[in-house]
Amino acid sequence: MPFRAPVADFRFLLNNVVGYDAICQTDRFAEADPDVVDAILTEAGKMCEEVMSPVQRNGDLTPAFLENGVVRTSPGFAEAFRSIAEGGWIGISADPEYGGMGLPLTVATAVNDMMSAACLSLELAPLMSQGQIEALEHHATDEMKALYLPKLISGEWTGTMNLTEPQAGSDVGALRSKAERKGDGSYSITGQKIFISWGDNDFTGNVCHLVLARLPDGVPGTKGISLFLVPKYIPDADGNPGERNGVSVVSLEHKMGLHGSPTCVMAFENAKGWLVGNEHDGMKCMFTMMNNARLGVGGQGIGAAEGAYQHALAYALDRKQGKTPVPGAGTIADHADVRRMLGTMRADLMTARCIALNCAKAIDLANATGDKDWASRAAFLTPLSKAFGTDTGVMVSDLCVQVHGGMGYVEETGAAQYLRDVRVTAIYEGTNGIQAMDLVARKLMDGGEAACRQIEEIEQTAEAAKEVFPDLAELLWQATETLRETTEWMIGQADFSNRFAGAVAYLKGFARVLGGHYHLQAAMADKGGSYERLARFYITRMLPEHVGLLEQARCGMEDLYALTLEDLAQ
Amino acid sequence: MPFRAPVADFRFLLNNVVGYDAICQTDRFAEADPDVVDAILTEAGKMCEEVMSPVQRNGDLTPAFLENGVVRTSPGFAEAFRSIAEGGWIGISADPEYGGMGLPLTVATAVNDMMSAACLSLELAPLMSQGQIEALEHHATDEMKALYLPKLISGEWTGTMNLTEPQAGSDVGALRSKAERKGDGSYSITGQKIFISWGDNDFTGNVCHLVLARLPDGVPGTKGISLFLVPKYIPDADGNPGERNGVSVVSLEHKMGLHGSPTCVMAFENAKGWLVGNEHDGMKCMFTMMNNARLGVGGQGIGAAEGAYQHALAYALDRKQGKTPVPGAGTIADHADVRRMLGTMRADLMTARCIALNCAKAIDLANATGDKDWASRAAFLTPLSKAFGTDTGVMVSDLCVQVHGGMGYVEETGAAQYLRDVRVTAIYEGTNGIQAMDLVARKLMDGGEAACRQIEEIEQTAEAAKEVFPDLAELLWQATETLRETTEWMIGQADFSNRFAGAVAYLKGFARVLGGHYHLQAAMADKGGSYERLARFYITRMLPEHVGLLEQARCGMEDLYALTLEDLAQ
Repeated sequence: MPFRAPVADFRFLLNNVVGYDAICQTDRFAEADPDVVDAILTEAGKMCEEVMSPVQRNGDLTPAFLENGVVRTSPGFAEAFRSIAEGGWIGISADPEYGGMGLPLTVATAVNDMMSAACLSLELAPLMSQGQIEALEHHATDEMKALYLPKLISGEWTGTMNLTEPQAGSDVGALRSKAERKGDGSYSITGQKIFISWGDNDFTGNVCHLVLARLPDGVPGTKGISLFLVPKYIPDADGNPGERNGVSVVSLEHKMGLHGSPTCVMAFENAKGWLVGNEHDGMKCMFTMMNNARLGVGGQGIGAAEGAYQHALAYALDRKQGKTPVPGAGTIADHADVRRMLGTMRADLMTARCIALNCAKAIDLANATGDKDWASRAAFLTPLSKAFGTDTGVMVSDLCVQVHGGMGYVEETGAAQYLRDVRVTAIYEGTNGIQAMDLVARKLMDGGEAACRQIEEIEQTAEAAKEVFPDLAELLWQATETLRETTEWMIGQADFSNRFAGAVAYLKGFARVLGGHYHLQAAMADKGGSYERLARFYITRMLPEHVGLLEQARCGMEDLYALTLEDLAQ
Repeated sequence: MPFRAPVADFRFLLNNVVGYDAICQTDRFAEADPDVVDAILTEAGKMCEEVMSPVQRNGDLTPAFLENGVVRTSPGFAEAFRSIAEGGWIGISADPEYGGMGLPLTVATAVNDMMSAACLSLELAPLMSQGQIEALEHHATDEMKALYLPKLISGEWTGTMNLTEPQAGSDVGALRSKAERKGDGSYSITGQKIFISWGDNDFTGNVCHLVLARLPDGVPGTKGISLFLVPKYIPDADGNPGERNGVSVVSLEHKMGLHGSPTCVMAFENAKGWLVGNEHDGMKCMFTMMNNARLGVGGQGIGAAEGAYQHALAYALDRKQGKTPVPGAGTIADHADVRRMLGTMRADLMTARCIALNCAKAIDLANATGDKDWASRAAFLTPLSKAFGTDTGVMVSDLCVQVHGGMGYVEETGAAQYLRDVRVTAIYEGTNGIQAMDLVARKLMDGGEAACRQIEEIEQTAEAAKEVFPDLAELLWQATETLRETTEWMIGQADFSNRFAGAVAYLKGFARVLGGHYHLQAAMADKGGSYERLARFYITRMLPEHVGLLEQARCGMEDLYALTLEDLAQ
């Protein structure tokens, strides 16, 4: 089944739920009016359909492999990457001074979503470059920017991020990679990094690694870490790839999925690197990259959900089994439980997409206006975008397998690939548990101001819909009250273990209620239409899940730690 | 990490939650007293630990393959199967007249659970034989019994079930395989079957296929189907494998997991077969096998959950990351969200196990006493055992990957194998959606009598715990009220589409409340102990999920079918 880019869906959501207008009303993004965005998304969608989607299965069937120290990529990936680069899709929101399109991140988020739907493993390559571009734009010297940014944006070179070491996963501060000052302004980097996505490839002239390492006088923990740019080939005086640097791929991981994306163990041996940002300030710089990447990974989950949803729908509209209860073609899509699965997939896909687009909008408005409220909204929605987006990717892909029945378990239908591919997105770039801890700790540090402002907006949506959809508005209103009480409970917990004990449930519960907010907004803009019917499905069927989730969110640590390790090991 | 058979857990649950006493108080099972059962489980557990667990990874790393029409099995599988057979573990509950142990199905359920935990793909071989043994015991002629049962029970031969055809999956009645009367009392079978688990192997002297096919005068649909036994080798006058029958393996499926279990496309070409049961009565006979197999597949999910849980716990008790909030070894098991995951896994593993053991107990008591109430209890709990058991297998295996973080996505840790292996159990033997439809349609056909009797027992548990655990008892009581109302709503729906629209949610919600029942019983038997702490965790954190589930169960078909296929395809 050919992938169909959901451009119409984006058009509707941007205009009616996300409030895209506010973005192009700023000076910075004045040119990116809805017509321009529409043209851009149409063009990107075409590329996703015609170039990326056709190579998606190749990544799974002919994985990347290591040959004499060089990563060989899956058939067609090199050409497809070239198309992505030539279309300008790597630098959508990058600085035009260095060749970027300078468009809002909101547009980039929509394009990344579609690229992920078309071919997740390949999309990860430009996504990594985008993170690096963002980090360099914010923290590199002008000289470095001039050297690296044009080549990263044009796709001549690619970028990677090197954080993890065997003993330092979620606990980045435990890293052991070392950096030494060389006297000429450069640094020498030594250490081993694992889980480096697209750590090498055979289709770009250089691979630029952002590496976290500790200088001799760096204190233990995250505060003693610095960030370095370490290219595979050291640029010569003209900025062309010159001498080979002390960087090598030791091996590739054998993973559950995402085989098209080479996951490398990287060795740095006295590799030449250049400081990004200030010494010992690496975590701050890395977070610029990580926040962008977290939203991006959320988009991967959403895109994978889109791909899996289309795959399941096509099967359900074709497969016939038994007598169906309604007039129609008599395919399994007419069986109640199959339609329930399809509706669930589509409804949560929309919820996750609206969260991510609203997060991107907040970043755009913060950047364009300097308004701190938008910055805190962005910070608040980032862990939600990442965790709920990727949870949705896993849930929808899992249902895609289920809709296929036995054929879903057989690899030839491609259903299982979605599930195997997307599963890692709930883990990398900070596990979804880490995202939830970020949400209830750092993102409530403002006394819940950002959270409460979001909750008020949901209430306004319920209030505004009271006359037209009294039943739906009432359900959303009730849910919002529970969310407010739970948020207040969270803020009241001085012992953060009480927050962490309910963090994942709180994040999921918040997303559930946010979903009601977006779906009801969509219904108001499409009375009697498809979005109203989806909203009714979501609000009556799926929103009630918030009760159990928010109840668990308020449980606190007591029952959790009462359960001893001996109890668990019994 | 070596697998440790959960014999102590079974001992506690059988004596304190399942009420095993009632079984050995019957004449039929008088000899199977708790001491005997304990010895049996200890012995089986040892075999699982020492024989089956060591070959579990082999199944994944060196899958079964087809060589010149013969299935070659994974390394060590032949020897391990021999040990299973020699231990008598195939015929645990089979008729002693033919070599079975004649033990309660409750004991077989516990043993199958442990075997699944140790090596799921291999356990499927004896499970298939057990289903065939059951079907032959009930429906075959004495002559056939005498010929086949001793060999199936001893493991000299194995059995399979052949239902599915490409156009006939959930809709079994659409099958096209043909049978013709041969005049000598035998039949000639022609057709192709797919998804035949363990359709062939290289370690038994014969493979006996139970095949559904239609006689020339069989009406269309399920009522025109007959069941035949078709052996790979036709037994000679002495009952030894003789002439090769017209049965062949066309190919093996390339699956997401369970690679150690060969999933065959089978071709029958004028194959010689013998009728089991009456002509055109095949579905009834098949259901004997399927009900047994559904409970067995539920046990597969539960066993896989046990294996995955132990795997995750071992990792969590070893891996250190960051500072933990409580005194202890400082492993990630002390982080709140990891402990939440481990607690969730263990709590639902217990819920699923208690449902399956209680279902088996009901079957045993129905068989031993002829009491119709036990038979209807068994019928009611069968879809719950299958669907909730396998959903739990998937959920726990998924959390096993998550607890491992990035290492969970890398195949070498073995975490991903649990998820890939168990995923099919939610599909085969009737998808979990089909189970839910069975629950709300056929299993409520008695006007809800069986359901309501179960609900009353839950209320009695809440009532009995009121003094000791007032908070937990109250939560369970409230949940039971909602379950009762929802059940009454279901029974009131004359249009079954209204039931089906909420079937999966009803099944999950019923299981959630049943979990409260079992956990509270366990807490009453272990006041101040480990089971009380687990009950508190389950009832305060997980039981509240029933609210959203049962709310969805009562939604009816309206919102579902309002959502048109065009809406879904937008």
